[in-house]
Amino acid sequence: MLSQTHHSLEIYTDGEGFVDVTEYIAGWLKDIDAVDGLITIFIAHTSASLTIQENADPDVRHDLNGALRRIAPESSVYRHSLEGPDDMPAHIKSMLTSVSLSIPVREGRMKLGRWQGIYVIEHRTASHLRNLELHFLGTRQISAL
Amino acid sequence: MLSQTHHSLEIYTDGEGFVDVTEYIAGWLKDIDAVDGLITIFIAHTSASLTIQENADPDVRHDLNGALRRIAPESSVYRHSLEGPDDMPAHIKSMLTSVSLSIPVREGRMKLGRWQGIYVIEHRTASHLRNLELHFLGTRQISAL
Amino acid sequence: MLSQTHHSLEIYTDGEGFVDVTEYIAGWLKDIDAVDGLITIFIAHTSASLTIQENADPDVRHDLNGALRRIAPESSVYRHSLEGPDDMPAHIKSMLTSVSLSIPVREGRMKLGRWQGIYVIEHRTASHLRNLELHFLGTRQISAL
Repeated sequence: MLSQTHHSLEIYTDGEGFVDVTEYIAGWLKDIDAVDGLITIFIAHTSASLTIQENADPDVRHDLNGALRRIAPESSVYRHSLEGPDDMPAHIKSMLTSVSLSIPVREGRMKLGRWQGIYVIEHRTASHLRNLELHFLGTRQISAL
Repeated sequence: MLSQTHHSLEIYTDGEGFVDVTEYIAGWLKDIDAVDGLITIFIAHTSASLTIQENADPDVRHDLNGALRRIAPESSVYRHSLEGPDDMPAHIKSMLTSVSLSIPVREGRMKLGRWQGIYVIEHRTASHLRNLELHFLGTRQISAL
Repeated sequence: MLSQTHHSLEIYTDGEGFVDVTEYIAGWLKDIDAVDGLITIFIAHTSASLTIQENADPDVRHDLNGALRRIAPESSVYRHSLEGPDDMPAHIKSMLTSVSLSIPVREGRMKLGRWQGIYVIEHRTASHLRNLELHFLGTRQISAL
């Protein structure tokens, strides 16, 4: 029988960079005894975003961050500057990455590839508390219903 | 009880720029008496796209547009030029932003962050009528069934 | 009655470029007698990704590829270089395009626009076998249940 479950998750980011949230999300699927279905992850912000990227070599995240900086540099061309020089680049980087991700779930596990991790990308210089909304739709173990 | 509902929405764009469609989508959820679930928004075009961005300062959209122009400028390097100099940049901008968005819904409302608005981004210079496909899956008020 | 179905699909890519997978996915929906619902496509990789783009003029894909190369060029600035000069650009291109897509389905057909095709973008120079995970949620013809 299909059912759905929602969950809100708060993630603390330590300023600009990538925060691996894969285990938080996998843990929630285990908590709710998810079996088969679809999980959707949504980030309720416009200066932090989501991506699925390589989880093996930390240099990959370093270089991804460098690429985002080159694509959306701090600049005096922006009209929107009252929230600081890092705010407008943060909005651009958010627009170019993901606000929602949907991942199939089989036998309780997300069907991620071997090297895929789920990351919150903080685009602001300062630390922030970021809200993720999770939605699972699918089947759950009988004992859980 | 879970059920699903589809809806097609036509949005008129006034040439290059951002059109806020948040209220149209929130209004549809109200019309169908949605309670808890997931809404998916899909745009059936390759030279207009979707994004969720800050809805407070209009300068943000101005600067986002400027950023897209710098990332995908009009140029003589493109082979695809028959549909005008703004067409190939429009395809690139569409590829770099979103064609589908999925947003959790609780108690009839999308779980958007305080400053998040849903936008159609028109990438062509001319006005267009753009098609959005909406899909809601979840629970609805009994009176609506 | 709502039900869900999963499917894994392997796609062979012939090195850098776009592979049209629209017919594979449409064919699967036909195989499972899908009627109304939502299909989600997920790619289990971080150096290949998904996009929905114009399927008419092949020059569009050529120019999209050129744009991705300009946005994420091979470069000596990357720390991550052990897997070859094309690997880090491939991760950047993946981050800027899509890892998952959700498309409404009506009367057995995806609600794609007239010119929309679904593509796997291979970002590596060499050929690869790429895994797609498909998830359909919705109604199916009675005979299929």
